[in-house]
Amino acid sequence: MARAWNFSAGPAALPEEVLRQAQEELLDWRGAGCGAMEMNLHGKEFQSIIAQAEADLRDLLGIPETYKVLFLQGGATQQFAQVPMNLLAGRSADYIVTGAWSQKAFREAQRVTGGAVRCAASAEESGFTRLPVAEEIRLDPFAAYLHVCTNETIHGVEISAERIADTGVPLVADMSSHLLSRPVPVEKFGLIYASAQKNIGLAGLTLVIIRHDLLGMAPLTIPTPMDYALQAENASFVNTPPTFAIYVAGLVFQWIKRQGGLAGMEASNIAKADMLYACIDASGGFYSNAVAADCRSRMNVPFTLADARLDAAFLDQAKAAGLLGLKGHKSVGGMRASLYNAVTLEAVRVLVEFMNDFAKRNG
Amino acid sequence: MARAWNFSAGPAALPEEVLRQAQEELLDWRGAGCGAMEMNLHGKEFQSIIAQAEADLRDLLGIPETYKVLFLQGGATQQFAQVPMNLLAGRSADYIVTGAWSQKAFREAQRVTGGAVRCAASAEESGFTRLPVAEEIRLDPFAAYLHVCTNETIHGVEISAERIADTGVPLVADMSSHLLSRPVPVEKFGLIYASAQKNIGLAGLTLVIIRHDLLGMAPLTIPTPMDYALQAENASFVNTPPTFAIYVAGLVFQWIKRQGGLAGMEASNIAKADMLYACIDASGGFYSNAVAADCRSRMNVPFTLADARLDAAFLDQAKAAGLLGLKGHKSVGGMRASLYNAVTLEAVRVLVEFMNDFAKRNG
Repeated sequence: MARAWNFSAGPAALPEEVLRQAQEELLDWRGAGCGAMEMNLHGKEFQSIIAQAEADLRDLLGIPETYKVLFLQGGATQQFAQVPMNLLAGRSADYIVTGAWSQKAFREAQRVTGGAVRCAASAEESGFTRLPVAEEIRLDPFAAYLHVCTNETIHGVEISAERIADTGVPLVADMSSHLLSRPVPVEKFGLIYASAQKNIGLAGLTLVIIRHDLLGMAPLTIPTPMDYALQAENASFVNTPPTFAIYVAGLVFQWIKRQGGLAGMEASNIAKADMLYACIDASGGFYSNAVAADCRSRMNVPFTLADARLDAAFLDQAKAAGLLGLKGHKSVGGMRASLYNAVTLEAVRVLVEFMNDFAKRNG
Repeated sequence: MARAWNFSAGPAALPEEVLRQAQEELLDWRGAGCGAMEMNLHGKEFQSIIAQAEADLRDLLGIPETYKVLFLQGGATQQFAQVPMNLLAGRSADYIVTGAWSQKAFREAQRVTGGAVRCAASAEESGFTRLPVAEEIRLDPFAAYLHVCTNETIHGVEISAERIADTGVPLVADMSSHLLSRPVPVEKFGLIYASAQKNIGLAGLTLVIIRHDLLGMAPLTIPTPMDYALQAENASFVNTPPTFAIYVAGLVFQWIKRQGGLAGMEASNIAKADMLYACIDASGGFYSNAVAADCRSRMNVPFTLADARLDAAFLDQAKAAGLLGLKGHKSVGGMRASLYNAVTLEAVRVLVEFMNDFAKRNG
């Protein structure tokens, strides 16, 4: 098969240009005599790779000098524990639950703290189809931090950072599935984290962007690789970082710059999402997406067929048409198309054509 | 530059055959329509990759059915914390300190347990040039486990598993830098762990091989991805595992099988190590390695030049001759050649020729 149209929720499609560059450099990175997989951590070659990746990321996101960038492991799931382990410092913290992932973050924080964190609001009774409104949110003004997930990969709910009111406590955000898909006002946040397998690169790399004043609050018994302050002091080298994944992330950052940076990505992502939601909404109920219009995700579009007996045929025929990764998460069923940066407008056009055709044949 | 001779201690050289296969499959894994980096975790393609990798690893090491194989993140350094967090269960544990890495493991276990583990023996006063002898080892018969590091990457000390006496408590081994370089009697161990960036593949993957009876002892407050029992129940999918690193490890396992398995690797590794130690020992003191003959590592050969003022010239001229990664670890200085599986006999021959020539010109 040639390259298919890949709508997987993560690990997900990578830009073909990035893959071709990685392929070309695999046995010999720019005359180094070895590939990026095989480089000594402390040699000047890998040092230049990680320094360039950090500089490009800072440039793309406009990360202020008062923030550290860490290249860690363990994914967002490990951050669900690591955030409270580092930041709680004997206090409580507030969580806003807007879907499966912020719920997991909240439960994991409860687990590792023995119940010391609070749910400040939950949209669960709506089936996570809308955001909690202001009067539903009960904040603790003394909380160590307020945790949000700004894009819910499973429920397809996205919160624009501009909409989050300043509550006076440090804001911590899981941005795993939409970081780098749009500009972000980093200075609104105390800590941003993201696993890489959506818009950044390979599973196994986790980015943490943390404001200096939140470093150094972890207890002395925290595992050293999980201590943000130690990782910051050691430039993410407390343990060997995932070097090849950092190299690929660096290629992705440069690719995003060539696409016009985050403004360019955002324009493309809006066009893609608009096209798919328009197809769903115009299908006369054949397809539907239940999420309120003001918080529909540009990245992850879950949808159902009115007749679930057609699900298997939809997936089979999609696959035959070269459309991969459309099965919805098992916890919600139905379908899901993930439209990360590397998914092209052309891919979405092919998907929409297939969906219109499938509806016509089965409607 | 063409491919150099890479003696890096890790991340380290990978077999050229493996790199070429990864290169070929990078954009399309065997007709899947996407590469191994981009595959949905739960699809049949990635499921077949991880299942084959586990089957091949079990086959190579002869892992009994009573052990689970976990594909985790965080490297050996995270295991230094994870082992006591899982296995201590309110008791103490014994550590044998034979070099920098077992010392780090001991200190990290002390850190995360608030000092609840013991050093049962240390070879530090010898400068880690020999193993502790039986009468120096003071074991606690009630210890939760006994921890050893069977190959010390920095000090070049290797312990053959056959030499470790059964003490009646579960034996836990950090085998990061020599797993898969020789046969191992897995059944002597309760838990074996190894970071991948030596003989297995990419930095960011950690293998854990754990006997069933050691699962389920972690406290309920342990972060979920760090709980061995949860990872075992979920086939290493508590958090997204480093999928591409697992794919590369699978290619390496199949390459090792084609080399005659671990017996084949061992024969090759003995030949390589013998050649290099012979060169050092025959140099009339120009080069020296201080480690006792019965515990010299086949994998990591640290050596010094009698005249340290020649170090810079040695490294410069080695690099010019296409010999990379020979600088010793900063904590011990001098030189180090790592002779992992992917380092060929030819590479060692070139190194030895260079060393003989350098000695002749500067002796």
